Amino acid sequence: MKVVGNTLSKKEVPRVPEPTLRRLPWYLSNVKLLKQRGECFVSSTQISKETGIDASQIAKDLSYVNIAGRTRVGYKVDTLIAVLEDFLGFTNIHKAFLFGVGSLGGALLRDSGLVHFGLEIVAAFDVNPDLVGTCPEGIPIFHPDEFEQKRAEYGVRIGVLTVPIEIAQSITDKMVAGGIKAVWNFTPFRIRVPEHIVVQNTSLYAHLALMFNRLNCIENNL
Amino acid sequence: MKVVGNTLSKKEVPRVPEPTLRRLPWYLSNVKLLKQRGECFVSSTQISKETGIDASQIAKDLSYVNIAGRTRVGYKVDTLIAVLEDFLGFTNIHKAFLFGVGSLGGALLRDSGLVHFGLEIVAAFDVNPDLVGTCPEGIPIFHPDEFEQKRAEYGVRIGVLTVPIEIAQSITDKMVAGGIKAVWNFTPFRIRVPEHIVVQNTSLYAHLALMFNRLNCIENNL
Repeated sequence: MKVVGNTLSKKEVPRVPEPTLRRLPWYLSNVKLLKQRGECFVSSTQISKETGIDASQIAKDLSYVNIAGRTRVGYKVDTLIAVLEDFLGFTNIHKAFLFGVGSLGGALLRDSGLVHFGLEIVAAFDVNPDLVGTCPEGIPIFHPDEFEQKRAEYGVRIGVLTVPIEIAQSITDKMVAGGIKAVWNFTPFRIRVPEHIVVQNTSLYAHLALMFNRLNCIENNL
Repeated sequence: MKVVGNTLSKKEVPRVPEPTLRRLPWYLSNVKLLKQRGECFVSSTQISKETGIDASQIAKDLSYVNIAGRTRVGYKVDTLIAVLEDFLGFTNIHKAFLFGVGSLGGALLRDSGLVHFGLEIVAAFDVNPDLVGTCPEGIPIFHPDEFEQKRAEYGVRIGVLTVPIEIAQSITDKMVAGGIKAVWNFTPFRIRVPEHIVVQNTSLYAHLALMFNRLNCIENNL
């Protein structure tokens, strides 16, 4: 067993560095804004001015994306948006299962925004008998016992993990055994997975801790 | 104007490094599990075995927290939980306003889990006349024009940003002008704030892009 957290395992050399992948969505939202304002072309210098990120960094990041800029006029706005959305995986729909329809899980089920960024939750799993068999927002909720059959049926490769911490690892193991290839982990628990399984940690609570700490630091230093 | 993203501005030297702050919630959830299993003491070696993080790293991280371990028996579980929760800011309630009751904003309003980690959304703001004046989950929704008055009234220092990207910057400016000290930014937009304002970026979409990319890498390499 190998913990795959925020980094790729060494074998798979990523074509794109993680910091670049974190910045590209910023450029995308920025260029979308420029389009709304009626702009047709955009240069790295312009994106730099708007985002505060160094222009040479932006040019370097965009060099990973298959798009050519023209001297002086820059990138075509429409093309840049289309190429970035495609590159980031937002134009393909990736089907996902959600595990744990509690407070956060239920909230994510209701967040229709995810589908605009390529993630469609097609079914959810929970042991709560009041939930099993219901279909909130058109998304059916099944008992975890039905998972393997449903996975084959739906062809899902991504699992969203929003269960209580005490079952985070066992549900992860079940997901992986059933054929899930990527786990979007919203729990504050550090799950362990075999090599070649992707884990994306999004712990709202860790982010809260960071924010509270910085707020304290700043207020103590003022 | 200065962009404060994932790093503190240089003046305020943080007492705790960011990677440590990201790992501490993992230890916390782990120790909570051990408590459920009836354990009274825990050592760094034990946490290491459970989380896959190096024991010396864990000891170093825990040295920032005000707790003493005893040779051979380790840390007292109850004390470690209490000290970590306090240290991470989860035991104090931090009041917050939410800006933008769309799909994700509405979902966060319904996520009662946040309050267990120290964040209480006490009111929300939206321009939608169908929402203004309503009170979903007991949280009143006001028009943004009422923000400054409400901020003084509630004594709120944290703003949760879930508005469309085209108004992310202007709403941030409004928040900061009105006295907000920390912005939890869920938009994929890189907002800019004056020095001494904390920004915590939690872009679900950037995390999705990372996950999709790694999934592709792994599948192409198999």
